[in-house]
Amino acid sequence: MYNAVLCRYHEIAIKGNNRHMFERCLMDNIHVLLKKDGIDFDVKRVRGRVWIEKRDLSDFTENELAFVKKALSRTFGLESFSPAVKIKSEMSVIEAKVAELTPLILADYFAKKEVVKFRIRARRSDKEFPLCSKDIEIALAKVVADNCDSSRLKVDLDHAELTFGCEVRDEFSILFFEECKSPGGLPVGCNGKALALLSGGIDSPVACYMTMKRGCPVEYLSFHSTPYTPLETTDKIKTIAAFLNTYQRGGRLFLCNLVEFQKAVRDFCQPRYRTILYRRGMLRIGEAIAAKYGHLALLTGDSVGQVASQTIENMSTIDRATNMLVLRPLVGMDKNEAIRIATAIGSMELSSVQVPDSCIVFSPSQAATHSTVELIEAEEQKIANYSEIIAEIAENAEIFQL
Amino acid sequence: MYNAVLCRYHEIAIKGNNRHMFERCLMDNIHVLLKKDGIDFDVKRVRGRVWIEKRDLSDFTENELAFVKKALSRTFGLESFSPAVKIKSEMSVIEAKVAELTPLILADYFAKKEVVKFRIRARRSDKEFPLCSKDIEIALAKVVADNCDSSRLKVDLDHAELTFGCEVRDEFSILFFEECKSPGGLPVGCNGKALALLSGGIDSPVACYMTMKRGCPVEYLSFHSTPYTPLETTDKIKTIAAFLNTYQRGGRLFLCNLVEFQKAVRDFCQPRYRTILYRRGMLRIGEAIAAKYGHLALLTGDSVGQVASQTIENMSTIDRATNMLVLRPLVGMDKNEAIRIATAIGSMELSSVQVPDSCIVFSPSQAATHSTVELIEAEEQKIANYSEIIAEIAENAEIFQL
Repeated sequence: MYNAVLCRYHEIAIKGNNRHMFERCLMDNIHVLLKKDGIDFDVKRVRGRVWIEKRDLSDFTENELAFVKKALSRTFGLESFSPAVKIKSEMSVIEAKVAELTPLILADYFAKKEVVKFRIRARRSDKEFPLCSKDIEIALAKVVADNCDSSRLKVDLDHAELTFGCEVRDEFSILFFEECKSPGGLPVGCNGKALALLSGGIDSPVACYMTMKRGCPVEYLSFHSTPYTPLETTDKIKTIAAFLNTYQRGGRLFLCNLVEFQKAVRDFCQPRYRTILYRRGMLRIGEAIAAKYGHLALLTGDSVGQVASQTIENMSTIDRATNMLVLRPLVGMDKNEAIRIATAIGSMELSSVQVPDSCIVFSPSQAATHSTVELIEAEEQKIANYSEIIAEIAENAEIFQL
Repeated sequence: MYNAVLCRYHEIAIKGNNRHMFERCLMDNIHVLLKKDGIDFDVKRVRGRVWIEKRDLSDFTENELAFVKKALSRTFGLESFSPAVKIKSEMSVIEAKVAELTPLILADYFAKKEVVKFRIRARRSDKEFPLCSKDIEIALAKVVADNCDSSRLKVDLDHAELTFGCEVRDEFSILFFEECKSPGGLPVGCNGKALALLSGGIDSPVACYMTMKRGCPVEYLSFHSTPYTPLETTDKIKTIAAFLNTYQRGGRLFLCNLVEFQKAVRDFCQPRYRTILYRRGMLRIGEAIAAKYGHLALLTGDSVGQVASQTIENMSTIDRATNMLVLRPLVGMDKNEAIRIATAIGSMELSSVQVPDSCIVFSPSQAATHSTVELIEAEEQKIANYSEIIAEIAENAEIFQL
């Protein structure tokens, strides 16, 4: 029944001189998301809307439509979309199509409720079209009433359960009956690439999601401490990274074994500073990988004040380990806000799997809440081959295409 | 009628070894917020709850209660609070008080609705008390029914419009009839002090709010370009800073005249990099003020991808101007999310006042979306006395106690 999908994006996000770039990026992303064996989708832009059709213009099968819906519900930059019936911009054609579809559309609603609140919403961008929006709505309301048990329909403009949408455009007209939500934001790829320090926790996947939503492609860096952490540690990370990639495409996972660095910290530095020293080492490894693979910023799930390493003092000390921009989208969030987003996007379930974490290997019973850069740099100087260890760990990163 | 206010905070935010510090900070903040001529409030902690009473233990007047409610609705670290009647932990005393208060409490509700859904919730932390929670609830339900037109009350445990709360504790018992929301988060002062770059826009006040909510006291730095910006520019900033201070106390405003720096940038550097150069200059002035006045981090309302200066590349270039930690709580937020928070906390209205902004003085018609540190540093070197200009502007900051 549906031969097109109408995609809507906020004009506000797509501004001024960069509008064309944003739109191009959005369309490319949809194209990539819809790449699937054996189906040839076409993505077009026509006057501020993006359209998806099959190249042969035939109707979508139920499976194809389900596939498109799933992909678009994860496409940043889109606000909403609607499966649509594309027809000729002629009133008799539109009326005939509404007459044909009314019983089909209403069957589902009538199966659930005795009386259905509905409305008709028409828009006419083709100003040559003989009827105005209001007249189209009146005409179509009559067609709907004539083609169903109209005693079971109640017009309700404000709380409609079902909206018959009709847009009359120059080139064609469309009918649609639902508006599905997309996540909004900016299309991934319209901004620079970030490298996320991904842990198995709740926060870092949320940080990745938020950063992608602002248009940045995200790749992932994670650490294990084999043989002190089990295989499950990296399996969990791979699962989370692959899941996050369903919101973009092709973000790689860089996996590093931190254990040689951790041993050096254990052997030469004060135990209470271990967490700070670990995190500075991680940022430095991230910086090395970013320099090699073209990431413009690092990305963490840090939030002020959640744990000892997140006092402003310790965050400052950790931040000083790198000259790179570090994005921390959760920095001002309460834990329950991060949990709410994690639950909404679907990462909570994955983060809740309990496996040992690289950060806690040799970790102290009592972590310092205060530190200074000078003090921590003095600790680092106790490790004679500090730079070599960091460089070697970065060099030996395993890279996974997910 | 009320002689106490019961304050609740999430145990989860108040963890482990630091619990005592968090609680102390929360109580100090409440104390400061309640400082008012002529009223002597007492703030006490008793077994995981914070209490407010008047020092003479007398009832709160209506004005006093309104004042306390307003203050607590802006106290970070608190989850909720309830005006309460504190009485002896004896069942006959509790019953007599409920009998006395029932008609008073219900009068308001009955004035609005024919039938009121209500419930009774009792808690007994005094395990010596002869009745269990369930029995207390049953006994009090009878008292309520005997003291009003019970045909107008309907018990509804899940959707009660009115809850009679009763807590029986070792030292005393309390009755309360409403639970008011506080903003949650951590008490301001339990983390390090930040210096916010406050503009007249929507984002930076939201960034301040979120950072205070994570426990950081916030002070404000803002720029004007007198005589190129009018007096209204600084008036607006003072209003916004004073408003933000209602969520903490005593955050100072540092006001700097940026115009000498802007003139130098105008005269010596490429126009398309002006915004980037301005923002780097602002961070450096911020760093100088922070060093002098003890701020541990800078704070901005930056969000990835909103304007040309917020591409990852330009954010990186700007970030490199300072070694200090820069907090950007809005970095992963859509504009509409920032607007939603600004509206909820009350800053939106103030930010919407239209006055000329220091950032746009001499600003280019076309801003660069790409930059590198090397390129921008070369531009800065064209200004012979760059460091002196920055130092002088910071030195000449006007300081306002709000």
